[in-house]
Formats: sequence, structure tokens, C-alpha cells
Amino acid sequence: MKILNVDQLLSEQIRHTPPSFIRNILNTAADPEIISFAGGLPNPATFPEEALLASMERIVCTYKSRVFQYSVTAGLPELREAVALRYRQKFGLNIGSDHVLITTGSQQALDLLSKVLLNPGDGVIIEKPSYLGALQAFSQYRPVFHPVELTEDGMDPNRLEDALRYPVKFLYAIPDFQNPTGLSYSAQNREKLRELLSDKNLVLVEDDPYGELRFEGSRLPYIGAGRLPGSVLLGTFSKTVTPGMRVGYLICENKELIRHLSVAKEASDLHTNIFAQYLIWDYLQHNDYEAHIASVTALYKRQAQAMTDAIDRYFPPSVKSTRPRGGMFLWITLPKGISALSLFTSALEKKVAFVPGDPFYIDERDVNAMRLNYSNADCPVIEEGIRRLGELLWEKIEGTKAAGRMRTFPSYPF
Amino acid sequence: MKILNVDQLLSEQIRHTPPSFIRNILNTAADPEIISFAGGLPNPATFPEEALLASMERIVCTYKSRVFQYSVTAGLPELREAVALRYRQKFGLNIGSDHVLITTGSQQALDLLSKVLLNPGDGVIIEKPSYLGALQAFSQYRPVFHPVELTEDGMDPNRLEDALRYPVKFLYAIPDFQNPTGLSYSAQNREKLRELLSDKNLVLVEDDPYGELRFEGSRLPYIGAGRLPGSVLLGTFSKTVTPGMRVGYLICENKELIRHLSVAKEASDLHTNIFAQYLIWDYLQHNDYEAHIASVTALYKRQAQAMTDAIDRYFPPSVKSTRPRGGMFLWITLPKGISALSLFTSALEKKVAFVPGDPFYIDERDVNAMRLNYSNADCPVIEEGIRRLGELLWEKIEGTKAAGRMRTFPSYPF
Repeated sequence: MKILNVDQLLSEQIRHTPPSFIRNILNTAADPEIISFAGGLPNPATFPEEALLASMERIVCTYKSRVFQYSVTAGLPELREAVALRYRQKFGLNIGSDHVLITTGSQQALDLLSKVLLNPGDGVIIEKPSYLGALQAFSQYRPVFHPVELTEDGMDPNRLEDALRYPVKFLYAIPDFQNPTGLSYSAQNREKLRELLSDKNLVLVEDDPYGELRFEGSRLPYIGAGRLPGSVLLGTFSKTVTPGMRVGYLICENKELIRHLSVAKEASDLHTNIFAQYLIWDYLQHNDYEAHIASVTALYKRQAQAMTDAIDRYFPPSVKSTRPRGGMFLWITLPKGISALSLFTSALEKKVAFVPGDPFYIDERDVNAMRLNYSNADCPVIEEGIRRLGELLWEKIEGTKAAGRMRTFPSYPF
Repeated sequence: MKILNVDQLLSEQIRHTPPSFIRNILNTAADPEIISFAGGLPNPATFPEEALLASMERIVCTYKSRVFQYSVTAGLPELREAVALRYRQKFGLNIGSDHVLITTGSQQALDLLSKVLLNPGDGVIIEKPSYLGALQAFSQYRPVFHPVELTEDGMDPNRLEDALRYPVKFLYAIPDFQNPTGLSYSAQNREKLRELLSDKNLVLVEDDPYGELRFEGSRLPYIGAGRLPGSVLLGTFSKTVTPGMRVGYLICENKELIRHLSVAKEASDLHTNIFAQYLIWDYLQHNDYEAHIASVTALYKRQAQAMTDAIDRYFPPSVKSTRPRGGMFLWITLPKGISALSLFTSALEKKVAFVPGDPFYIDERDVNAMRLNYSNADCPVIEEGIRRLGELLWEKIEGTKAAGRMRTFPSYPF
């Protein structure tokens, strides 16, 4: 045999894992001519580069070889305690460092939870639409998805009740500034969900990468964390400090479950980069993290405003948009029957990119929706990108040139 | 329901994943009173701390936010090319950067290969004994293991032929300075194995974390890399630069297979820490890597010598040891019927630690062998640790006090 027949060798799990849009998105975002609202990148201006460099110098000088050596699977004890302390003090959770497992980004937490919980055919409840990276991670383990419609208030409780009639291993939700929609769950919705889940033997995975990035309204309690025995809370430093370091964590009060997650982590990558863990920990010790988060949030507020203003100005009225109160994304709904995916190539020709809705759904195609990211472009660039996109939408939806349409709105400032 | 019934929720794969000895090993190694030959830690004195700090300062100043941002799954193109270049120039492989996938340590490569190739019940050929971290990674995917006896020359070809009669997805081997035995495959054995595998549709995973650490003899060609279509070669910077950064790689000339491995990686952790990738790449550009490896190897040669000398001096003659020509480990075989595991607690009482043979085997218990690591202790400490272990072995095996026995060897230098 001179060539390898790979198809004969592949596992069922990899056959069921869709190659993600994310890679293409990042490739697209790499072309400097294209204004990309497609990625999920934090604004690089928010990375505390000088402070991080100072921390690097400090930890290398102080801890020497320890920041370069193999380490323990659960994570740097100091960082686990710093995470626990913050959730005790700021979010009122009664947890210790034993309840914290450091992960190689939140993406790894999604993989580990699936690995530990899912047999092929097991039920998983997800939001509809849901984060594509989570769908990809879960898909590897061939579950049966039960998508529950996401409304302006959160998961539709009636649909959730229906989904809960199936045997389900876990429910995955992003209650604050959801990816892809930017929507958040209301206080009533959270309470209703908690009630519905309270007598179920399942894990509630609350993914909270964006909760800190609130620029409007006040923080609402977690659905499960500190309240439901099957709660697993995911957090990350990717959106507030640096994503490139791949430092996330999961918080789980159930010792048996966290022990299994640790075994799965050990088998997956032994431990998360220990230098990165020292770095984040040292950064937290020597900087005003809350003030830093406030500055990130203030920036994203301006960027979100720039995008929604530009949408009002340039998009046809038949196109609807969510109005996020935090986070990095908003969600555009086109008139029924208009596939966002079908617009993607034309958009690239106009040098603007977005994520068509399709990859956020299970088995739905030509969805009339798209995700826009506003965190990774300056306000004038956001305006220009939305102008280009508006031009396309007017042409494709209304069959009319946006330029002509625009002239009727002279009162808008440029 | 007030408590979570975790047992009802666990997947079959996690039920089949043994909690590894590695964690306990690292815990043991953390007690400063114990001389630990148990871990697989590089000597921290070999970490080029100053050069790495200089690289950190350079890459933060030069590439700024790019070292902190999200990045592409396959890895930093510059690092992939640097790896490919080295394997072209130094090892004669005809590969490009497209054939290189950066992984979060080699452990992740083991997980990804299993994820992509293994359905429950699929065959995997392993060495007997084999690396415990690999057994743990593979076990997650519930294969049927076909262990093939490892001899002084490599895998026993006759036993391999038997194993190849089963349907097998991949063969996993560490041909140089194997973990746990320290043994290397002879040139003839490599050729024989290549011949046996040449007409088989399977993947040959050649794990090569230690090949650079040769202190005796000359390098032998890879079994599969550049020669067999199903070859996957694993490498890492963990043993030559720093393990804490978790930067490994796999080399695979089959584009279809590497594409699937990339999808699996994306679903597992999006990408490996990009700062760490820039760091290793910059380090390679600005330092004499070959000279650094030579200095690591010279150190390990002295340490290996110290350990084998001390074994000759302090162990009963009925105890056999391999004589590694590189790498970080050697393998002790006790007389038949003596369980190394049964000695572990007594060894800890004497403040010395090793890894009993059991976790390197599938379903064998009370193995009469142990792994000793010599890379992470200075020569006088190695001598003292082996002296303590020898004392224990004399007591348990020969029923005699080592101290008395020792006095009959006055010619050995102390």
C-alpha cells in the first residue's frame, strides 16, 4: 500500500465534527482591506501590554524555573485562589480554590465537559441560536441537540419544559450578552429556569465570557452558580486581559464532577501553560483589574453605539437588530427568505465581513440572520463597514441603490 | 432533587480513563524532603531563563498586541516553518510548514490522534510497557490495546506480526530512549518494522520527545517519517527549552489527516497559546539551539552515569537496569514475583520515590519493574537516592541490610 486511505481510519466523532467557520473568519479578518465584523476578537487596544510585560519580568525574576517547568493539572494554586476570591467577593459565591479548574481557554472547558458527560445519543439542551464553538465542541461527542428558542428575555420556558422531557446530560447557556445574539436573560427568566431545573439531574453549564463587559443596566444573579447542585460556571481572562494566553477556568462545587473533569484535562494536555497562569495571577495582584475592565467596557459601549447608530442610518428598515447592553456582538435579522449566507460573497467584494447565521444552528441552512462583532474595529471603521453592508442590503433586499436612499437622510452626521 | 447524581451522568469514555499516576508523581515531587526519581521533569537548570526573558521583551516590543490576540488553529506560521526547516535540514524530511500542526504539548497530539482515529473497540498497537500518559489519552476513546513486547532492540517483530492480524487504527511507538524503559530501537528493527507496516492501512505514531537528548551513539532514521504514508511524527520543545509553555507539534504529510486533526484541535482549544509560540520561535532565531541541546545532553549524560554507577554500587545483583544512551529514564527489573508497587510506601518512608511499573501496562498488576528518572536531580542527590533505594531493595529482596552488604565493596569510590 503506497497511499494512506484516511477515510477508512476516521472515527465517528470526527465525521460528526463540522470544520468551524471560526478559522475562515480569522483568515478573512487577516486581509487588511476587509472590515471584518466576523471575528470574535477583543479590541487589541485593550490588552494591557506594558503591565503584562512588567509582570513577565517580575515572575521570571521571582519564580525563575518554576514558571517554565511542568506543573499540576488543576492549575496554579495562587490563580485558583484569586479566581475563587473574586467570585466570593464580587459575585457572592461560597467557593474555594478546590472548586476552580484552570482550563486552556473556555473552549477546553466545553471539550472537557462533553468528554466527561456525553455518550453518543445523549441529550444536550442549547440555545437557538448558540455559540458555534460550543456546537463544534459538543458535536465531537455526537449528542442529540435540543435547541430551545432564545427570546429577548432568555430561553423560552415553555420550549425548555418540552426539551426537559427528553433525557438530557447538560444544558448550555450564555445568559449575559449571548454569542451570537448579544441578548441577556431577564431576572424573571433566570428564576423560572432555575425552578424548572431544580428537580432535574443534569448539569447546567453557564458560560460567562462576557458578563464583565456590561455597559448598561446592572448585573443579574447567575442561574445555577451557588444555587443549583449541577452548576458549572465557565469564565475566562480572554475578553478582559488577553485571549492569546488561553487561560480560562471552570467553577464547579461538585467535587466528584470536578475530579472527573481534572482527569479528562490531564489526558488532554496535562496542564495549562504555567507561565501564562503565573502571568495572569501576577497581573491581577499588581494592577487595578476592576478599573481595567471598566475601561474596556467604556470602549465597547462607544463601539456598540457606533454600530447601532450606523445600522439605524444605513440599513433598510426591514432589517432588525438586537441592542446589546454589554459584550461584543449584535444580531441582525433579515426579512424572511433572505439568506445571510447568500450575501457573504457579495459582502467580501464590498470588503466587509460578517458571520452568516447558519453555523449557530443545528441543521438549519440559509438562515435570515447574521452576527456582527463591534469590539475589534474603531468607531469610524465601524461606520464605514456598516455603510458598505447597508449598501449591499439595500441592493439585495430592496433592489435599490443605498447611495440614492442615503441622500434622503442629510440630517445624520458623518 | 437537592444533590447531583454524578454517576448517572458520566460518559463511558471517562469511566474508562484511569486517573493517572502523573498527578500523584508531581505531588510527591513537591515534597522537598523526598528524592524523586518519579517525575518526568527536565532539569530546571537547563531552562534558558535569561534568553527567554530577552525573547519576551523582544516579541512584546516588536509584535505588540499580536502576541496577546486570538490566532489561527494550525499555529504561528513562522514557528511551523522553523520546525519544518529544522526537520528538512537536520533530519532530511521533505516537509513544508503545511505539514506541521502546533499542539498544546505532545499530550494534546495524543488526544487529537485518538479523537480523530478511534471508535470504541478499535485496535491500537502499543509497546509493552508504554508511556502512561499515552495510555491514559488513548483509553479515553476505549480502544482495544494490542501490547507488543519491547526488547533491547525495539518492538518484537514476531509479536508485532501477530498484533497486525487484528484490525488496527494506529501503532504508537517511542523509538528513541523510550518512556518508561530508556530503550531505543536498533537500525535493523526499524527497517523490519517499516517493512511490516508498509502494506498496512494504519497510522504510525512515532513519538519523539527525547530523540534530541542522545548522549551516546549516532542518530538512527525514523521508522515512518518520510518513508511511510501513514506516518505521524510527534515533537516538542518541552524537553529542550521549556515544558511549562506547552508547545509541541505533529508532523504529518497526509493533508487529509492533518486537516481532520486541525478540526479536532480547533474544537479542543481553538489554538495553542500564541505568546508561547512567538516566544519559542524568537528563541530559536536568536540563540544557538544546537549548542543549547548539546549542553542539556551533556548534563543528562553525567546524571545518567551517576545513576547507573550508583545502581551498580548499591542495588543487589539480582536487580537489572537498562543503560540508556539518551533521554531521561531508565528501567529497573526486579526479580520475578517482587512487586515494585508493594515497595512504594516503604520507599517514601525512606524519602525516595519512583514510578512502579503498573501504570505502564494494560491490565497488569504488581509488575516487577519501576521507572527511574535521572534528569531532575543533581549527581550527589542521585547517588543518595539510589543508595536509599538500594537499602530498601536489599532488605526486601535479599532480606539483608544493605549497609552491611555495602561494606564488602570498599573499592567503589564515594
